[in-house]
Amino acid sequence: MSEVNLDFDREKRLGFGEAIYCAGKSHAQIDVILAQATSGDGRFLLTRLSPDKFSRLDSGARGRIDYDPVSQTGFYGAVRPIKSSGQVAILTAGTSDVPVAREAQRTLVYHGVAAREINDIGVAGLWRLTEKLDVIRAHPIVIVVAGMDAALVSVVGGLVPSMVIAVPTSVGYGVASGGTTALHASLASCAPGIVVVNIDNGYGAACAALRIISLLN
Amino acid sequence: MSEVNLDFDREKRLGFGEAIYCAGKSHAQIDVILAQATSGDGRFLLTRLSPDKFSRLDSGARGRIDYDPVSQTGFYGAVRPIKSSGQVAILTAGTSDVPVAREAQRTLVYHGVAAREINDIGVAGLWRLTEKLDVIRAHPIVIVVAGMDAALVSVVGGLVPSMVIAVPTSVGYGVASGGTTALHASLASCAPGIVVVNIDNGYGAACAALRIISLLN
Amino acid sequence: MSEVNLDFDREKRLGFGEAIYCAGKSHAQIDVILAQATSGDGRFLLTRLSPDKFSRLDSGARGRIDYDPVSQTGFYGAVRPIKSSGQVAILTAGTSDVPVAREAQRTLVYHGVAAREINDIGVAGLWRLTEKLDVIRAHPIVIVVAGMDAALVSVVGGLVPSMVIAVPTSVGYGVASGGTTALHASLASCAPGIVVVNIDNGYGAACAALRIISLLN
Amino acid sequence: MSEVNLDFDREKRLGFGEAIYCAGKSHAQIDVILAQATSGDGRFLLTRLSPDKFSRLDSGARGRIDYDPVSQTGFYGAVRPIKSSGQVAILTAGTSDVPVAREAQRTLVYHGVAAREINDIGVAGLWRLTEKLDVIRAHPIVIVVAGMDAALVSVVGGLVPSMVIAVPTSVGYGVASGGTTALHASLASCAPGIVVVNIDNGYGAACAALRIISLLN
Amino acid sequence: MSEVNLDFDREKRLGFGEAIYCAGKSHAQIDVILAQATSGDGRFLLTRLSPDKFSRLDSGARGRIDYDPVSQTGFYGAVRPIKSSGQVAILTAGTSDVPVAREAQRTLVYHGVAAREINDIGVAGLWRLTEKLDVIRAHPIVIVVAGMDAALVSVVGGLVPSMVIAVPTSVGYGVASGGTTALHASLASCAPGIVVVNIDNGYGAACAALRIISLLN
Amino acid sequence: MSEVNLDFDREKRLGFGEAIYCAGKSHAQIDVILAQATSGDGRFLLTRLSPDKFSRLDSGARGRIDYDPVSQTGFYGAVRPIKSSGQVAILTAGTSDVPVAREAQRTLVYHGVAAREINDIGVAGLWRLTEKLDVIRAHPIVIVVAGMDAALVSVVGGLVPSMVIAVPTSVGYGVASGGTTALHASLASCAPGIVVVNIDNGYGAACAALRIISLLN
Amino acid sequence: MSEVNLDFDREKRLGFGEAIYCAGKSHAQIDVILAQATSGDGRFLLTRLSPDKFSRLDSGARGRIDYDPVSQTGFYGAVRPIKSSGQVAILTAGTSDVPVAREAQRTLVYHGVAAREINDIGVAGLWRLTEKLDVIRAHPIVIVVAGMDAALVSVVGGLVPSMVIAVPTSVGYGVASGGTTALHASLASCAPGIVVVNIDNGYGAACAALRIISLLN
Amino acid sequence: MSEVNLDFDREKRLGFGEAIYCAGKSHAQIDVILAQATSGDGRFLLTRLSPDKFSRLDSGARGRIDYDPVSQTGFYGAVRPIKSSGQVAILTAGTSDVPVAREAQRTLVYHGVAAREINDIGVAGLWRLTEKLDVIRAHPIVIVVAGMDAALVSVVGGLVPSMVIAVPTSVGYGVASGGTTALHASLASCAPGIVVVNIDNGYGAACAALRIISLLN
Repeated sequence: MSEVNLDFDREKRLGFGEAIYCAGKSHAQIDVILAQATSGDGRFLLTRLSPDKFSRLDSGARGRIDYDPVSQTGFYGAVRPIKSSGQVAILTAGTSDVPVAREAQRTLVYHGVAAREINDIGVAGLWRLTEKLDVIRAHPIVIVVAGMDAALVSVVGGLVPSMVIAVPTSVGYGVASGGTTALHASLASCAPGIVVVNIDNGYGAACAALRIISLLN
Repeated sequence: MSEVNLDFDREKRLGFGEAIYCAGKSHAQIDVILAQATSGDGRFLLTRLSPDKFSRLDSGARGRIDYDPVSQTGFYGAVRPIKSSGQVAILTAGTSDVPVAREAQRTLVYHGVAAREINDIGVAGLWRLTEKLDVIRAHPIVIVVAGMDAALVSVVGGLVPSMVIAVPTSVGYGVASGGTTALHASLASCAPGIVVVNIDNGYGAACAALRIISLLN
Repeated sequence: MSEVNLDFDREKRLGFGEAIYCAGKSHAQIDVILAQATSGDGRFLLTRLSPDKFSRLDSGARGRIDYDPVSQTGFYGAVRPIKSSGQVAILTAGTSDVPVAREAQRTLVYHGVAAREINDIGVAGLWRLTEKLDVIRAHPIVIVVAGMDAALVSVVGGLVPSMVIAVPTSVGYGVASGGTTALHASLASCAPGIVVVNIDNGYGAACAALRIISLLN
Repeated sequence: MSEVNLDFDREKRLGFGEAIYCAGKSHAQIDVILAQATSGDGRFLLTRLSPDKFSRLDSGARGRIDYDPVSQTGFYGAVRPIKSSGQVAILTAGTSDVPVAREAQRTLVYHGVAAREINDIGVAGLWRLTEKLDVIRAHPIVIVVAGMDAALVSVVGGLVPSMVIAVPTSVGYGVASGGTTALHASLASCAPGIVVVNIDNGYGAACAALRIISLLN
Repeated sequence: MSEVNLDFDREKRLGFGEAIYCAGKSHAQIDVILAQATSGDGRFLLTRLSPDKFSRLDSGARGRIDYDPVSQTGFYGAVRPIKSSGQVAILTAGTSDVPVAREAQRTLVYHGVAAREINDIGVAGLWRLTEKLDVIRAHPIVIVVAGMDAALVSVVGGLVPSMVIAVPTSVGYGVASGGTTALHASLASCAPGIVVVNIDNGYGAACAALRIISLLN
Repeated sequence: MSEVNLDFDREKRLGFGEAIYCAGKSHAQIDVILAQATSGDGRFLLTRLSPDKFSRLDSGARGRIDYDPVSQTGFYGAVRPIKSSGQVAILTAGTSDVPVAREAQRTLVYHGVAAREINDIGVAGLWRLTEKLDVIRAHPIVIVVAGMDAALVSVVGGLVPSMVIAVPTSVGYGVASGGTTALHASLASCAPGIVVVNIDNGYGAACAALRIISLLN
Repeated sequence: MSEVNLDFDREKRLGFGEAIYCAGKSHAQIDVILAQATSGDGRFLLTRLSPDKFSRLDSGARGRIDYDPVSQTGFYGAVRPIKSSGQVAILTAGTSDVPVAREAQRTLVYHGVAAREINDIGVAGLWRLTEKLDVIRAHPIVIVVAGMDAALVSVVGGLVPSMVIAVPTSVGYGVASGGTTALHASLASCAPGIVVVNIDNGYGAACAALRIISLLN
Repeated sequence: MSEVNLDFDREKRLGFGEAIYCAGKSHAQIDVILAQATSGDGRFLLTRLSPDKFSRLDSGARGRIDYDPVSQTGFYGAVRPIKSSGQVAILTAGTSDVPVAREAQRTLVYHGVAAREINDIGVAGLWRLTEKLDVIRAHPIVIVVAGMDAALVSVVGGLVPSMVIAVPTSVGYGVASGGTTALHASLASCAPGIVVVNIDNGYGAACAALRIISLLN
């Protein structure tokens, strides 16, 4: 009764390999998965790997992981060189959105894409956004990471012609708690042509960016 | 078993009289209420009075009503002169928000306050807002009427120091339908010190403005 | 107190002009808007224009509109020639999803992009999808329109490397009613890198496709 | 004021005995219940018995329990021999769904039924499912355990004529969190004749399978 | 751009053919579908066909439909003889649940299965259920159709060992409105091994029964 | 397949007979039920009988019904004399709550209990309540009918020692729409020992009062 | 800035004194409150007092408290003698509902009323209820404590004429989690005249019983 | 990739500076922010700073913070003198609402405004409110902090003409849990002109008060 059945064919089919979502798995299950790395190209992206769970992995495996505690991501195996840059900007509305943005940035780096992070430019202080507008507009793909009212999504979407991918976050309390308000506000955005991924899904936004980048090249 | 028990004391107590919310009342009940106008100052503000229900009122009563079909409001009895102006600006994000904004504007006029409407300045085209900013800032009270993502609320709230009252509207479809997204986005606004009333409650926003105006005078 | 304030600058800024969302507007408001067409390039895309509301428009305006009752869209003014094709496939899970898909297709046509519709290929009969896979894969952008469980979104997203834009629909009854199940299933898709727009928002999916197409050219 | 009143008649009435749902009970209450085992056939199935609570049980009771930490189930008393096999397949979409699937499998084993687990065949990598289809189809009863979008439920339900019982799981984050999306997607499945049990209810799915098996024999 | 792509293979694959869900389709689309009946076995089950929509169908098609207004179902083409009976009992809690029960009954009849309806036996008058218990228990499959609190589901599920399929209905007002309470109560039933289908989904319950009946034969 | 199975035993068992809830029934079904009146005591209480449905009943039946359009209730058969009074007060917060209150009042009258209605005493004008407090306190049972914030429930519950039964209503718009806010506010009341029935369920509140009255006599 | 303002008048006004709800208060705040006991009759009922918080109270106060860890209630000060019994039965559907039932029972005892607990009689094993029916019926007030589907509420409500007060509990998982399903099923009960209090609110049910008892005496 | 981008311009623009919301930030991020205090006026208001997180801050920074554990707020840098008083009253319904009220009070103090707290005056004991009415009415701005049914909001709003700002709190259990009931009851208040901020948002209510105070001076 094997519990793991990896999709090593994914990279060839979709252009990016299977990531190991660690939140719902025990450290023992993760160790079993990593032991199968010999079957693919020997590399894995690990997401939602909490520092505590990371510390309980088999020490051998742990040594082969480039781990980042802010985004709770790990690169297992050889790290690929950066192949492209200048295509993706990642914006955050507030400092609390940085972990999700970093998950997107790390997912891109794992696939050889460097992205530019522009942080803490929420619309409550609009000048912080407008002074960065030219830099943002220069990127064909803009990932906007925002919780609470997610107003940054609409303002950016109305100002730049790039492909705008919104990542609502679960930051905040009261009606903002859990991220549904940010999700719904992004989906109901008055700016046209904005697309959205699941709450806190920096990984998914990066995969969407990778799908587009493969079209551009 | 009288069904109506009017609060004629309200104007003295709160500064503005009881309005007749017509949505949940039959035209016969409204006729009964209007017949009691002799007990107060002979004036009533009617809200949510649909054109169809208006047309079914007793013809005598109908003749004493200054009716506006866009806002579905009516002034029964003598109309007071405008006592103050320049204090309230009412903004809408889109043309579909106008009926709610007009309800606020008519409620203010009924109480002798002229307000300035600035329409269709949603943030998807930010220049429409920024070119009006100086005019908006000149008003101590700013009512922002917006549905969908209600991003206009946060952007205005971050730019002007006035008292900002958000009125979320039920405009839109999908997750915007019913106005909960606009309501929650307004409550979760990243701009500090914004206050919110119920969805589509232009009347309530106007009453809040009247409470503040009575403090200013 | 003008109620309309069109964003004629949008086409230059974002690459596509402002559309007139007719659901929340009276036919009189729409007539006023169309009368302003002289200010821009004399063209408008009208969405959510019900047959009944269309029939109440000013007859002069009505004569200048290419109206499609399935998608409830209208082209006002000169129709542009098709500039590009072969880039976008639009899939529907069932026949009931066609009106939303058609809104996307018509929005693209209005902007000079021809799209391919492939209908009624929901996964309950998987062979209907698999026999079309090669055709679908040939398009860099795939819009998947699906209600109920929206399982088509995940299956397509796992099989083709194109940019997949999911449009959940409000088709169905019980828990499917209103489209929240399809929306959430699309957002929670097990296939990586899928992006989502609001329920029934064929227009938004088309605008997102236009943002990508402008990157490809 | 006895707090426990066991339904020892259930096995005769329904074909399977009462299970002890431990999540809402203190370890002291569970000890009291187990002490009553002399009244029935001396056997109990314990579900949702966390490792921590298991370790606090009376040591005598603990020694008579065959405990499985993955499914958090325990068999108290004599274990029955396997009476039938080949009738039930249990599928999981991902590794994180295994604990729920294992609860179903253990419940069946407790009642003398061996089931086949086929894990990690979510539709994001459709080949993983299609290469197992002949094996799955050979089972009259198929339990599908899936969280997030639960698309596996619909795809399996459209491909195999067996009785398909969906068990949505609470795996995932954002809109997937808590399992409502998987539940609703299963209920709204485009594949006809699929039935559903509560979120994470592997035990209930096994009981439904037992009801069917008793019809088959 | 054909909008219809029928799954004529379904009967062979699953044991029952595709039904035409009419709620989301125009009468013109239904006419187009019926015109394709020559490709399969010339038969169709139509569900959610309102009397109004039925009356607008092409008169030729209408003449070939055995229509039942209570369940809003139609049999198009030759009617099959009853092949089996005595296997399915269909219970309703109240008279208002009859239309959903009749949809299940008609779906079974279309596939050659006669079912027994036992109506209006909700638990508020428990004697109505208990006097029918022996009749109910004699059926291997029991479909329970109930709205509001759906308590009938749990009581039946605790008393009979048959396969119990719950169909929650949208009958009722306040918290019962829409059927979510009945759905959740059925899923959370204290009786073990009960399975559930979507709200008002009599068709789906019948299909599940057909899956089981094919196992029994 | 009879669709109706009346619980004529209910009056003996519970102290009040079965009412016919007409909202989910066709006028034909209601006619069938009324024709069975010979089996019981020849009397029925009909609730949620809309004026339109009433007008479609068999004319013979219609002639035997004492119909009240405000509460949409009907008494079929002989009307009983009032046996008790002074025990129940029914309060409404606003005029729009009167139909629900009247349903309670009529249900009581049908069972021989006269109740006192005190209308339009919502707490926005607190003097309207306080001037009636002595009258209210004189009743052992107080039914409070209120929508929107249902604040009247808490204020009354904190001031009078009587049994307070809250009936939330669906009156209002925005977050008040549908009555969930009034329901939840009543359940979360800061006044202790208040009990609640379903939204708009005047009938249920009256039945609860009847249960208590039978204890008092 | 005193944070506490006790309602010592409540006992005289309503018939029972203010209870101290400890869940939202720090142990320091509770100590301050208890120190004011000299102002009233020197007695307090404490609810939702967790064992941990109890252990942190001032040791002098702790010594004057009769604490019960199952219900998390405490009696501070002199305990009154039992004045009445035989009026209230408290039923639980399952063992996990006992803590809430015990809160009701302890609240009654604090006010001098002895109640009878009848536990674990959920309808999945209907004989457990029916064998207790005569005992239950002998009590004028019946408190039914049930989680999950709360079907016990409806079955009891349909069988006994007593005043039935439902207390939904948060017991269970999936759709049962949090108690909303049990709450809504109780409110939508098919048995007439049942009243409901908030989820897990054993205290409130007891206060409602006290209101009725004061009417009976 | 700087994660922090402070809006030092806010004080000039809006009249009050940026506060540091600490809940979503690590103590390391907070230390980085405080180190930038040299750029502005060297002062910061810290909110949602838990005692545990406060204790982990850099000891130098900690020494410059005036910390209040009840409200979880801190003043970093020089404390300004009180400039105005007598303008704001802060009411709480119960002792459990005090932490949120204190956050409002501390935010005002940070900006030089002294407010009056009047605690534990919920309407279950109405005399507690009425005996304070004259004091409350003397304040032009009244912040009402209330959870559960939030009935205090409506009663105060109907009695005093001041600007009433409601702060719903997450105090309570069952349907009150999380504060949505209090939020919705406040928004649906029957008293006109009440405005609302997010659940538990004492900070936001204080900022709204500051916006009004700047109008008064």
